[in-house]
Amino acid sequence: MIAKLSSLFVRTLREDPADAEVPSHRWLVRAGYIRRAAPGVYSWLPLGLKVLQKVETIVREEMDAIGAQEVRFPALLPREPYELTGRWTDYGDNLFRLTDRKDADMLLGPTHEEMFTLLVKDLYSSYKDLPLSLYQIQTKYRDEARPRAGLLRGREFVMKDSYSFDVDDAGLEASYQAHRAAYQRVFERLGFEFVIVSAMAGAMGGSKSEEFLAVAANGEDTFVRSPGGYAANVEAVRFAAPEALPIEDAPEMALVDTPDAGSIAAVVEILNRDVPGREWTGADTLKNVLFKVTEADGTTRVLAVGLPGDREVDVKRLAAALEPATAEPLSPEDFEKYPDLVVGFISPVSLDGTRVLGAESATRIEYLVDPRVVDGTVWATGANVKDKHLTGVTAGRDFTADGVLDVADVREGDPAPDGSGPLTLARGIEMGHIFQLGRKYADALGLKVLDQNGKLVTVTMGSYGIGVSRAVAAVAEATCDDKGLCWPVALAPYPVHVVATGKDQAVFDEAERIARELEARGVDVLVDDRKASPGVKFADAEIMGMPVIVVVGRGLAGGVVELRDRRTGEKREVAVADAVAEVLAALA
Amino acid sequence: MIAKLSSLFVRTLREDPADAEVPSHRWLVRAGYIRRAAPGVYSWLPLGLKVLQKVETIVREEMDAIGAQEVRFPALLPREPYELTGRWTDYGDNLFRLTDRKDADMLLGPTHEEMFTLLVKDLYSSYKDLPLSLYQIQTKYRDEARPRAGLLRGREFVMKDSYSFDVDDAGLEASYQAHRAAYQRVFERLGFEFVIVSAMAGAMGGSKSEEFLAVAANGEDTFVRSPGGYAANVEAVRFAAPEALPIEDAPEMALVDTPDAGSIAAVVEILNRDVPGREWTGADTLKNVLFKVTEADGTTRVLAVGLPGDREVDVKRLAAALEPATAEPLSPEDFEKYPDLVVGFISPVSLDGTRVLGAESATRIEYLVDPRVVDGTVWATGANVKDKHLTGVTAGRDFTADGVLDVADVREGDPAPDGSGPLTLARGIEMGHIFQLGRKYADALGLKVLDQNGKLVTVTMGSYGIGVSRAVAAVAEATCDDKGLCWPVALAPYPVHVVATGKDQAVFDEAERIARELEARGVDVLVDDRKASPGVKFADAEIMGMPVIVVVGRGLAGGVVELRDRRTGEKREVAVADAVAEVLAALA
Repeated sequence: MIAKLSSLFVRTLREDPADAEVPSHRWLVRAGYIRRAAPGVYSWLPLGLKVLQKVETIVREEMDAIGAQEVRFPALLPREPYELTGRWTDYGDNLFRLTDRKDADMLLGPTHEEMFTLLVKDLYSSYKDLPLSLYQIQTKYRDEARPRAGLLRGREFVMKDSYSFDVDDAGLEASYQAHRAAYQRVFERLGFEFVIVSAMAGAMGGSKSEEFLAVAANGEDTFVRSPGGYAANVEAVRFAAPEALPIEDAPEMALVDTPDAGSIAAVVEILNRDVPGREWTGADTLKNVLFKVTEADGTTRVLAVGLPGDREVDVKRLAAALEPATAEPLSPEDFEKYPDLVVGFISPVSLDGTRVLGAESATRIEYLVDPRVVDGTVWATGANVKDKHLTGVTAGRDFTADGVLDVADVREGDPAPDGSGPLTLARGIEMGHIFQLGRKYADALGLKVLDQNGKLVTVTMGSYGIGVSRAVAAVAEATCDDKGLCWPVALAPYPVHVVATGKDQAVFDEAERIARELEARGVDVLVDDRKASPGVKFADAEIMGMPVIVVVGRGLAGGVVELRDRRTGEKREVAVADAVAEVLAALA
Repeated sequence: MIAKLSSLFVRTLREDPADAEVPSHRWLVRAGYIRRAAPGVYSWLPLGLKVLQKVETIVREEMDAIGAQEVRFPALLPREPYELTGRWTDYGDNLFRLTDRKDADMLLGPTHEEMFTLLVKDLYSSYKDLPLSLYQIQTKYRDEARPRAGLLRGREFVMKDSYSFDVDDAGLEASYQAHRAAYQRVFERLGFEFVIVSAMAGAMGGSKSEEFLAVAANGEDTFVRSPGGYAANVEAVRFAAPEALPIEDAPEMALVDTPDAGSIAAVVEILNRDVPGREWTGADTLKNVLFKVTEADGTTRVLAVGLPGDREVDVKRLAAALEPATAEPLSPEDFEKYPDLVVGFISPVSLDGTRVLGAESATRIEYLVDPRVVDGTVWATGANVKDKHLTGVTAGRDFTADGVLDVADVREGDPAPDGSGPLTLARGIEMGHIFQLGRKYADALGLKVLDQNGKLVTVTMGSYGIGVSRAVAAVAEATCDDKGLCWPVALAPYPVHVVATGKDQAVFDEAERIARELEARGVDVLVDDRKASPGVKFADAEIMGMPVIVVVGRGLAGGVVELRDRRTGEKREVAVADAVAEVLAALA
């Protein structure tokens, strides 16, 4: 196919869009691929739609190759199935809810586990019908609190979601691995660097889950890797608790004056001055942080988190651990309800041994601690008295937590939980997410089949997503440079961009002839046949980012045209007669 | 591609779905092509999705062929543009409205005139950029009061909508004709009988509009045709007013007692008995019907419609004429506010000459009359007194209407408005609708370009829709029979259905071999490789409706297979060696 810039519906922009935070967003808008229609909601212009369709085709081919069958569900869905699984509530404000003219509650589907489960229940009844994998490429909705970065985090977006149905765990594992392999092929074909990391299941539920992240400095997700092969989204990192220490060796609690100690650093300085005999560091202190937690149904409670004082609570790890509930720091007003607690000097225990934090304590505030806070560890912490701290506060003797909550920040150099070496941190864009859901949805919605013995068994499910529209942005992000977009051949709307320069009709004729010849070989070509200056045309070609650029201009009189490689910027003259062959070679 | 029924996600149903009103709905559900997800909202199963995608491809090819460029807008749209054109209100309850987490008003797009207008305004500024045609194939939403007939009238559906942009009326006409021709090609390729009829623009606005109707006994739309080529949706029929008659020849008004005359027929009977000298018919009487009209903004008013007594107000013609306002018969309570009006004896004038209907009359009720009620026509009508009628009531002398409203029922045999002969009535399904919008949207949203003289001119637009998901149902409706679906080759999910019968492995091997050989020739094949009885397999093949069925069974031992034509039911044996060639011939 040939498209001519004189009539193609596209305009490049000289200015960055005001809300562009990342290069892919900036260039996709400036190159005329997408246009914002509302916050987090985009229109696809002809060039952008072509890339989107190419991504769709790659995803479709790889899903078909593993025997998944394509279906298509509506986006407008009834409330009931989501009520049965609790997600009508659990999704909170992220769900677009609406009522129809008869006041029936409906939603715009964020993901379709419920609908697929019910459809399979509707049609299938025997183990002989399984395994089954279904998928759709479909528009999804999520009312993001902060839609950002263009297509990377939108409120309306295209996803491929698939669902596997198996009669037993081994079947689920096989379906999961088939999807995992298909995803690797998809992302290899899309042509960007990616990592597969352990992930949190979140609102989706289920046991095992992994994410496919496109490695990108601007990515929203932080992940860790070790030399020994450990890889996880930071939100999913779970540090193993060290072994408990003998409590009998622990020192007694002792009070220390810590006037004006407004930070862990100040406390540590006082301890090193006034409590000699050892070196104190932030890691010897126990920091207790209070949050107000709001459940999906709107009820609230207070939560205390205890962690080594040299670490902060990572808000994203905390959010992931509590999902669908949300947390915010406890307000001064809320603190006033707990006179036993003194801000800046909070401790799970007071000098007289009174327990202050924990479900069984005076405050009844749930108290969860970092995995490093095992029995027998000894801490300096507040004294629940202004300007006083305690030393010798010993876990398992002076206080007992209600459980473990692993939400401290993860740092470069921390040991990998599996002992595979020190962690390094990097950032990525979530491109795919695969889940072993298990029987959560099948249980809630009653999807059972008869097994080989004629007994009803609950089906076990997997769910697998790829961000299709997001992939367009992720590829743009990974490939663009400071001049504009720069597509790989497989995704470029037109692999070849023929630029005719000058006013000589022969130049335009030859540009057209080369385009026709390439088209005859099955290559889609964009021809710049506009009446515009060479400078404007070259700049547009760089912004639009087709991988191979053919300049037909002054050289034509001498029998040559120029081939440009958009990525390297390399230019070379080739004989007109060789132009098509050279272009085909460059594309191969 | 080959699909095997042993693993294809499909189940045929023995029972009709409870809500199936039309054959296409019944068979699409029973054959496992679609499934209801909510009222008027359907999921596409693998077989159905293949048909939908084939329709999409045909539409896309024909739109590309006229140089229309594909884009894709979101379905989730902001309120503002629809507010500017008035459609936020005009759509009434048909619009799905919602608010996002920040309480911004949004809607699910029923059609995208506003968004396309704004996008072109955003990118283009000169007459040199025009003409331009853009299209999308996209999911649309309309909260139908009565979703019915499966895909024929759903609340979520797939449409191709396109929009043309021209600098002048001649350009619009050319763009309109290009679309009209493309639509003819699309509907010819879809393979059903269609008519192009004059139509109402409705909420869309604009001047000229035509509908493409699939001729179908179950169609919702009624249209008329004349031998001379007139064709119109009944809602769009506009009878030409006859010439006015000389008023001086009209008789005086006279009172007639009409006790217990509860119907036009009873009045006519009394007139023929008590007012001799001529034959009275219903067409000599003037019937006045009152409605309460509710505007889109919720305000109400009363409207009186006068029409010959032998005709009824056609509620669909009335609804189309008033849109976006709606009308309902005036309630007894509302009648009580007009003591001048006596139900059953309503007249625009009383015996003493007092005007009772009309903006200038005592009641101030707007009075619109059928085009046949021209000046000089003489009527028998009520007397605004119980059990009394008037004769000799003469239009233009005794009463004057506020205007014409052509909403009387249209009948078989009525003369075509253009004099091209008597009308016949038939029913159809609206498959496409093309509009010359003119400058309504460009005016409201400020879409202007510089013309050749450097002057800003408002762009003139067309809008063109095809019901893509509806087309699947329309083709099914036009082609199914009493055994099931029966697809044309171009739209069948699999043109060939190979049925292996019996238990002999050789039969299954040969079925597979034939399928592979057809696949190698580019033909998609469905193979029934299930362990099921021949009866079950044959019935499923009939319900699913692939056009060519190959039965591989007992005959194989004798070197033959059976070819069945799904449409005609014709069966014939062919040599195994010739099977592939015969199938290819049957498909051609």
